[in-house]
Amino acid sequence: MIEIEIRRLGDHEILHAFPAGHKERPLPTVVFYHGFTSSKLVYSYFAVALAQAGFRVVMPDAPNHGARFTGNEQERLGQFWQILHGNLTEFSGLRDALYQAGLVADKRLAVAGASMGGMTALGIMTHHPEVTSVACLMGSGYFTSLSQTLFPSRESESIAAALAEWDVTTALPRLADRPLLLWHGDADDVVPPGDTFRLQQALQREGLDGNVTCLWEAGVRHRITPTALEATVDFFRQHL
Amino acid sequence: MIEIEIRRLGDHEILHAFPAGHKERPLPTVVFYHGFTSSKLVYSYFAVALAQAGFRVVMPDAPNHGARFTGNEQERLGQFWQILHGNLTEFSGLRDALYQAGLVADKRLAVAGASMGGMTALGIMTHHPEVTSVACLMGSGYFTSLSQTLFPSRESESIAAALAEWDVTTALPRLADRPLLLWHGDADDVVPPGDTFRLQQALQREGLDGNVTCLWEAGVRHRITPTALEATVDFFRQHL
Repeated sequence: MIEIEIRRLGDHEILHAFPAGHKERPLPTVVFYHGFTSSKLVYSYFAVALAQAGFRVVMPDAPNHGARFTGNEQERLGQFWQILHGNLTEFSGLRDALYQAGLVADKRLAVAGASMGGMTALGIMTHHPEVTSVACLMGSGYFTSLSQTLFPSRESESIAAALAEWDVTTALPRLADRPLLLWHGDADDVVPPGDTFRLQQALQREGLDGNVTCLWEAGVRHRITPTALEATVDFFRQHL
Repeated sequence: MIEIEIRRLGDHEILHAFPAGHKERPLPTVVFYHGFTSSKLVYSYFAVALAQAGFRVVMPDAPNHGARFTGNEQERLGQFWQILHGNLTEFSGLRDALYQAGLVADKRLAVAGASMGGMTALGIMTHHPEVTSVACLMGSGYFTSLSQTLFPSRESESIAAALAEWDVTTALPRLADRPLLLWHGDADDVVPPGDTFRLQQALQREGLDGNVTCLWEAGVRHRITPTALEATVDFFRQHL
């Protein structure tokens, strides 16, 4: 049995899941990030599955999503890269709030996400050595190149500059020094699976692939399958 | 706060969600059906959202899905219509188990689902006048015609015959006598939004559209948006 609540933590509302009765007790904790135009509530099945495996799960809404959505869908569609950048810069505040509330056991804090959330997880991994392990589902860490084709906007150039320091291209050693799960459907028509392949190859080329697990699912487009969910749970069971 | 458990009910394992502390107390209840090649766990965000609104939610796995999956993906891809038929015929057993366990308040029992699960919900509505209200997200009730193009199989003819009695074509009055929510992304490239439009028009033509709410979401393909989830919760708040 698990419990789920919506509460405030740090600056914003979060979805909070945990094994029944362990609301306050320190636990190994996963911060999970949802996808673009979605919400913490729509991705809460990750919280259900991970809490059932014994973890605390904290799911924030991205800027202008879920409880933070202004309601202007057209405006939001032009803000993809700004919103991703917001996720990245907001992580340290959320991490501090988790520790201040005494919710994390033994510094066992992981980050995961799907689609834009997976991109968030990879970006956080480039900057935060204190994160124990990372799972990126159908994401990409090649922000600079991808911003040319995925949701390009008038502000692309300035936001690409701000995101460059979070790009995986120059951060391979920081992606290699802890367990990392990459999952991607090989028929994904939204976030290119080629970016995941490129990262896998770059890590292999440098001899940095000892901690990476790369899972491909044949014929799967841009969606989370039961296999992807199970692989995420298994990964954190082993590595958090 | 809500609670979620995996338990056995009737013949199979279910996912069971409810407001915290109300595990045994009779509550208005939604039976929710997941989509093809997915699982009760991957769709459990509907359980989270509906339990937060005060409902009990029971999510079965379809035949050969989730805890009932044999692991043979290729075999399953040829069984779409047989699996839908299994969902339809298994409903009465699940309903009986819910009542025998004393979990349903005042005969307030609704059915909902997405994709194959939405098709299940519509099919159940044609046969079960005891169901209070129904929500079908990105589904179709035109089983006979759709089986020609969606996952056609060698056994299509025999299974189409078995499904004909659950088809909405000849059951419009039974779809009209209780609240019904239809939601569909108008760019859905898996289950044709044209089938939802056809049902809406058929009900209108017969003057049977007084209880139907039809919601379209522009530019949305085959996925559940935060808006769709919120509309489902609002619908049952009003009609269960």
